[in-house]
Amino acid sequence: MIGIGVIGYGYWGPNLVRNFIEAPGAQIVAVSDLREERLAAVKARYPAIKTTRNYNDLLTDSSIDAIVVATPISTHFELAMQSLQAGKHALVEKPLTATVDEGLRLLEEAEKYNRILMVDHTFIYTGAVRKIKEIISQGLLGPIYYYDSVRVNLGLIQHDVNVLWDLAVHDLSIMDFVLGQQPCAVSATGQSHVGKMEDIAYMSCIFDDGLIAHIHANWLAPVKVRRTLIGGGNQMIVYDDLEPSEKVKIYDKGVTLNGNGGSEKAYQRMVEYRSGDMWAPKLNTTEALYLEVLHFIDCITSNRHPITDGEAGLRTVHLLESANRSLKQNGQPVELTWERVAV
Amino acid sequence: MIGIGVIGYGYWGPNLVRNFIEAPGAQIVAVSDLREERLAAVKARYPAIKTTRNYNDLLTDSSIDAIVVATPISTHFELAMQSLQAGKHALVEKPLTATVDEGLRLLEEAEKYNRILMVDHTFIYTGAVRKIKEIISQGLLGPIYYYDSVRVNLGLIQHDVNVLWDLAVHDLSIMDFVLGQQPCAVSATGQSHVGKMEDIAYMSCIFDDGLIAHIHANWLAPVKVRRTLIGGGNQMIVYDDLEPSEKVKIYDKGVTLNGNGGSEKAYQRMVEYRSGDMWAPKLNTTEALYLEVLHFIDCITSNRHPITDGEAGLRTVHLLESANRSLKQNGQPVELTWERVAV
Amino acid sequence: MIGIGVIGYGYWGPNLVRNFIEAPGAQIVAVSDLREERLAAVKARYPAIKTTRNYNDLLTDSSIDAIVVATPISTHFELAMQSLQAGKHALVEKPLTATVDEGLRLLEEAEKYNRILMVDHTFIYTGAVRKIKEIISQGLLGPIYYYDSVRVNLGLIQHDVNVLWDLAVHDLSIMDFVLGQQPCAVSATGQSHVGKMEDIAYMSCIFDDGLIAHIHANWLAPVKVRRTLIGGGNQMIVYDDLEPSEKVKIYDKGVTLNGNGGSEKAYQRMVEYRSGDMWAPKLNTTEALYLEVLHFIDCITSNRHPITDGEAGLRTVHLLESANRSLKQNGQPVELTWERVAV
Amino acid sequence: MIGIGVIGYGYWGPNLVRNFIEAPGAQIVAVSDLREERLAAVKARYPAIKTTRNYNDLLTDSSIDAIVVATPISTHFELAMQSLQAGKHALVEKPLTATVDEGLRLLEEAEKYNRILMVDHTFIYTGAVRKIKEIISQGLLGPIYYYDSVRVNLGLIQHDVNVLWDLAVHDLSIMDFVLGQQPCAVSATGQSHVGKMEDIAYMSCIFDDGLIAHIHANWLAPVKVRRTLIGGGNQMIVYDDLEPSEKVKIYDKGVTLNGNGGSEKAYQRMVEYRSGDMWAPKLNTTEALYLEVLHFIDCITSNRHPITDGEAGLRTVHLLESANRSLKQNGQPVELTWERVAV
Repeated sequence: MIGIGVIGYGYWGPNLVRNFIEAPGAQIVAVSDLREERLAAVKARYPAIKTTRNYNDLLTDSSIDAIVVATPISTHFELAMQSLQAGKHALVEKPLTATVDEGLRLLEEAEKYNRILMVDHTFIYTGAVRKIKEIISQGLLGPIYYYDSVRVNLGLIQHDVNVLWDLAVHDLSIMDFVLGQQPCAVSATGQSHVGKMEDIAYMSCIFDDGLIAHIHANWLAPVKVRRTLIGGGNQMIVYDDLEPSEKVKIYDKGVTLNGNGGSEKAYQRMVEYRSGDMWAPKLNTTEALYLEVLHFIDCITSNRHPITDGEAGLRTVHLLESANRSLKQNGQPVELTWERVAV
Repeated sequence: MIGIGVIGYGYWGPNLVRNFIEAPGAQIVAVSDLREERLAAVKARYPAIKTTRNYNDLLTDSSIDAIVVATPISTHFELAMQSLQAGKHALVEKPLTATVDEGLRLLEEAEKYNRILMVDHTFIYTGAVRKIKEIISQGLLGPIYYYDSVRVNLGLIQHDVNVLWDLAVHDLSIMDFVLGQQPCAVSATGQSHVGKMEDIAYMSCIFDDGLIAHIHANWLAPVKVRRTLIGGGNQMIVYDDLEPSEKVKIYDKGVTLNGNGGSEKAYQRMVEYRSGDMWAPKLNTTEALYLEVLHFIDCITSNRHPITDGEAGLRTVHLLESANRSLKQNGQPVELTWERVAV
Repeated sequence: MIGIGVIGYGYWGPNLVRNFIEAPGAQIVAVSDLREERLAAVKARYPAIKTTRNYNDLLTDSSIDAIVVATPISTHFELAMQSLQAGKHALVEKPLTATVDEGLRLLEEAEKYNRILMVDHTFIYTGAVRKIKEIISQGLLGPIYYYDSVRVNLGLIQHDVNVLWDLAVHDLSIMDFVLGQQPCAVSATGQSHVGKMEDIAYMSCIFDDGLIAHIHANWLAPVKVRRTLIGGGNQMIVYDDLEPSEKVKIYDKGVTLNGNGGSEKAYQRMVEYRSGDMWAPKLNTTEALYLEVLHFIDCITSNRHPITDGEAGLRTVHLLESANRSLKQNGQPVELTWERVAV
Repeated sequence: MIGIGVIGYGYWGPNLVRNFIEAPGAQIVAVSDLREERLAAVKARYPAIKTTRNYNDLLTDSSIDAIVVATPISTHFELAMQSLQAGKHALVEKPLTATVDEGLRLLEEAEKYNRILMVDHTFIYTGAVRKIKEIISQGLLGPIYYYDSVRVNLGLIQHDVNVLWDLAVHDLSIMDFVLGQQPCAVSATGQSHVGKMEDIAYMSCIFDDGLIAHIHANWLAPVKVRRTLIGGGNQMIVYDDLEPSEKVKIYDKGVTLNGNGGSEKAYQRMVEYRSGDMWAPKLNTTEALYLEVLHFIDCITSNRHPITDGEAGLRTVHLLESANRSLKQNGQPVELTWERVAV
C-alpha cells in the first residue's frame, strides 16, 4: 500500500484526493494546505485523513511514500525538490516548474535518489488523446502537415502566469505525446488587456520537416472552444473535447501533388483531392485522472518510468519559457536547442 | 447608362457579369478572355454581349466607361493601369495588385486622370460585415481587445499565390473596414506541403493600443470553418459565415479589473466577470456583389469615393506583402509604416 | 427549522438530500430505504442523519414535519397517503401517482388535513422554463400555435412504466406550467421493442383554440435530443436543454394571413412572412432542485400554495393515463374531461 | 434521342429542363405554361426550345416521346392521363395524384398503353438515401425499430394542399424505398393556423412487426430541421440533410434484452446497452435530379421499370389520403388495405 501525501487542497487537489482514494494500492495519509478552511473541508469529507498547515509534516511522515504537489506554479520546484530530498516520489501538477533550470534540477535530483518524478499532464490519460496517439502511431495520417489547437473561453484570469502557461500547456503536453518530435523554433504573439499577464496569445511551433503546430489560447472569448485539427497527407483528425461522445473524428481526406505542373492548368491537373469516409471511434471513458493515478502507483510499485515523466514536463516548460521570450518581442522566433533539456 | 467591359471570365467573372446585368444604370458591353471556350459560354448565355480574345478591344471601345479586371493577380496591375490610362474607371478583383509598388502607381494614375479605382472586397458589402461595422461604430463593444479569424477548408490549392493571399485577404479587408485602424507590426508563420506556396499560415497583427488581430488560413483542413471572434471590454461578437441565418451574434459578456490586487486572493476579488444576453440581429440578405456593383455605378455616376477604394486595396496588399516577408523568417516581426502606402 | 424525512435513497434521493442539507430552514432528520447498502451510503456521507429500513419510523418521528417520497411510482400513493395521514407535509417525486384515482385521493387527504402536497416537477424551477413562462405571460409570442418537444436518447429502459411516464412527464409538466391551459383530447402511438413497455412513443395534445402540442419520447435513440419548439403568431421559442449556455432562443419570426386570396397568386400575396432578430436571454443558473426545495420549505413555513401543487401533479397524471389508453389503440383519440381532476 | 415536352415552368420546371438538357440521350422539344412571362423566361435562356400556352401542342407533337408534368397537384391526373393516352411516357411531379382513384386509373392506363409512368420522388436518387437503402439492405441495422423524421422550417404556405402533402410526401417516399414494407394503420394530428390547410402535422405509421414510423411536418418553425432517425437492434442511422458533408451517420449502438427479469434489479441485469464507433460513409454527390432524369431516359430506351414507378407514387398517395382522414378526427387510426392500391 503506497502512502500518499497531498500538498495543496485548492481547485485541483480535491480531484486528486478523490481519485487516490478510489484507486487500489494507495492510501491518502495526509493533506496540507495553508488555509484552515480547506483543511476543514478535507476533515468533513474524509475524517480519516490527517491534515496540517505545515507541509513538512508530510515530508517527515514515514508512512508517506509519495507527495502530490497541487499548489501554485511558483512553489512547484521547492516543494517537489524537498519531497525528492526527503526520499519521496513526486507527482507535480502541470506545468512542472516555472523555469527550465528548476525543471532540470528536479530531474537530476529524481535520478540521483532514484525516485519517480511524474508530471500531471492529465489529458494524456484521456481516451481521446490515447486514441489519437494510437492512430498516429499506426501511420494512418501519412506525413503530418500541421497540428492546430484552439483553447478559448471566458476563463478565470490568473495573475501569476499568462494564458499560455494556463491553457496552452495542455496542448503542448498533448502535442509532445502524440507527435513524438520536438520543434526547432517557436514564435508567439499576445496581449494583456485585463491584468498584467497576456490574456490572449498565439504560439507557432516550427519543426524541421515541414510540420507546423499552432495554439490559440484566450481567456476573453465569448464562446468556449476546445478543438484540435491534425492534418496529414492521408487522413486528418478533428478532436473536439466539447463533443459529448464523438470527440475524435478521422476524415479520410487529403490532397496530393503528382508531378510538377508548369502552367496553372497543368498544375491543377496535378493536384488530387480525396474525400472519403469519416469515422469516430469509440473512446474509453474512464476518468483520465483515475488512470493517471493508477499509473503513478504502478510506476512506484514496479519501478517503471512514467509516460508523463519529468522530461515530458521539462520539454513543455522549455516551450513555454521560449514562447514567453518570443511574446515580449512580437513574434521574434526563438530557436530551441533540445540538448539543454536532456538530462 | 454606364458601359462596362469585363476582362477575364473565369471563376469570378460570371458572377460580376450577372450582377452588372441585373443592376440598373449599367450595361455590359463586352467581355474578353484568352480562352475561346469561355467566350463561347458568354455568347451562349448573353448573345448581346460582344466577346474578344484581345482586351485592347475593350480599352479602345468608346462605349465602355469602366473596366472590370477579373484575372489572375499577376496581371491586375498591367490591366488596371492600361484601363486608367485609356480613361476608363476600374474595378479590380482582390487583392488589388501583387505588390505595394504596383498599387501605389495605380492610385497615382487614378488620381491623375480623376478616375474611380475600386477594389472588389466583396465581404464589405455583406449584411453581416456591415452590421458588425455598425455595432463597432456605435461603441457597443467598448475597447476592442482582439480580432481573431479562422478561414480553413480543403480548398483549391493555388500555384501562384499562397494561402494568405487567397484566403486571409478576405479577413484583412474586413478588419480594415470594421476596425478603422492599422497595425504597427505583423508576424506570420506557415508551411507549404503540397505545392511550393504556403498552404497553411498564421498571421498576427500587432496594434499600438493593445489590440491584436490574428488570422488562420488553411487549404488543408478536413472541415470548413469561417469564424471570426471580436472581443471587447463590454461586448463580444461571433461572426460565423457558415451559419445559415444567425451569422452575427453579440454576447453581452466581459471581464473588468477594478483596482490592483496584490495577493492572488485580492486579485481575484478585483476581476469582475459579466455574462448577459446574446443577440443575433437580422441581417440584410441582398447579394453582396450586387450591392457592390450598384455602389461602383453610383461612384462613377455621382463622382463619389468608393468604400473599397484603391487605398483600402493598397493597405491590404501592404499587410500581405509584409506577412510574406515575416513568413520567410519564421515569424520575425515586420514593422509597418503607413506613410508609405498613403498617396 | 423544518424536519425532513426522506423515503427512498436510489437515483434521485441523494440529490434531494444534498439540496435539503444546503437549504436554510430545513434539516434532514432521517432517511429510509429497503437496501442496507443505500443506508450505508447515507451514513458514510452524513453521519448525523438517522437511517432505517422501515419508513414507519419516519412517520412516527415527531421531529419530522415533512416527508419526501423518492421511490418507484407504484409506491407513491401509499407512502404519500400515510405521510399525510400522519400529519406530515409531502413532496412526491414525479409522476405524482400511478393513476388519477390515487392522485385525487391524495389531494382530498391533503386538503382535509391542511397539509402541503407538492410534486417534484423539477424543470419548473429551472431558469430556462421560468424565462419561457415569463415571455409567454408577457404575450410576446402572440397566439400560440404549437408546442413541440423531443426528448430522446439511448436511455435507461424502465420495466415498470413506459417511456411517456419516464420522459414525457417532464414535457407535460413544463407545458402545463408555461401554457396555462389544458388539452381537450390526446392521441398517442408507440411501440415496445426491447421490453414489455413502450420504449418509443408519440403523443399529441389537441386544444380547443387551435393550439397543438406534441411530444416525442424515445429510449432507443442514437443521439441525445432535448429540444422544444414553441411557435406563436409573433415570435417563436427554441428551448434546447443541451446547449451549455444559450438554452432559450426567441426568434422574431412569424407568418400572417391578411384577407382571403381566392386564386393561388392572390393567396400568396396575402401571406406575410416576417424574420427579425434572434435573442437569447441570460438565464438564472441556480440549481433547479435547490430552488424547489427552498420553495417547499417556504410553502410549509408560510402556509402558501406550491407552484407545483398536487393539482399540477394530477393534471399530468391525467394526461399520461389518457395517453396510455390511446396508445393501446394506435392513436384513437381520448377526450379529456378536466372536471374529473378538479378537487 | 428521346424528345421531351415539359408542362409547367414554375418553381421546379426549370430544374427539370436544365437537367434534361444536360442529360445525354434526350432533348427538350417544347415547354408549355399558362403564363407568358414564364415562357419568355424559357426563350431567353433556351432559344431553341419551342414554347406554347397550350399543352395540347405538346401532346400532338410527334417529335415528343415523353411528357414531364410539373404543375399543381390538382392537374396531375388530367395531364398525365392525356399524355399516356396520346402515347407519351410520363414523368409526374410528386405527389403523383390528388387521390388514390386518380392514381389507380393512371397506372391502368400506363399498363394498357405500355408506357413508362414515373413519379418524381427526387430524394430516392440522392447519395444519402441510396446509401441508407444499401445499409438497410445489408441488414446492418438488425431488426428495424422505428423511422422518425422531422421536416420543419418557416416554409412557403400552400393554399391547395396541407403540410403533409407538401413536406411529408418526401419522407413517405424515402420510407417506402428504404424500408420496403407498408404500414397497416396510420394516425395523424395537426392544425391549421394561418390558412385553411394544416400548417403543422404529425403522422404515425404502424407496422405489423413492431416497426413504427413518424413524421413531423411544419411550415411554421423558427429553425430549419431535416433530420431522420432510423433505429435498429444492432445499429442506428442519423440522416441530417442539412449537414454539408456527413449527411448520414451510422451509430454502432443498441440495446438488447436477454431473458426476462422478474424484479427491477433482475430486469436491469438483462438489459445490455452497447455503444461503439460512429461512421459517416462518403456519399455520391451527383445532383439527384440529374440521376433521376438519366434513369427516366434509360427506362424509356431500355423499356425498364422505374425505381420510382407509378406504384411507388400510388402507395405514397394512399398514405397521404389516409393521413388526411385521420387528421380530421384527431388521430383516429385509419387501417390501410394495400390490395386496393395494387394494380
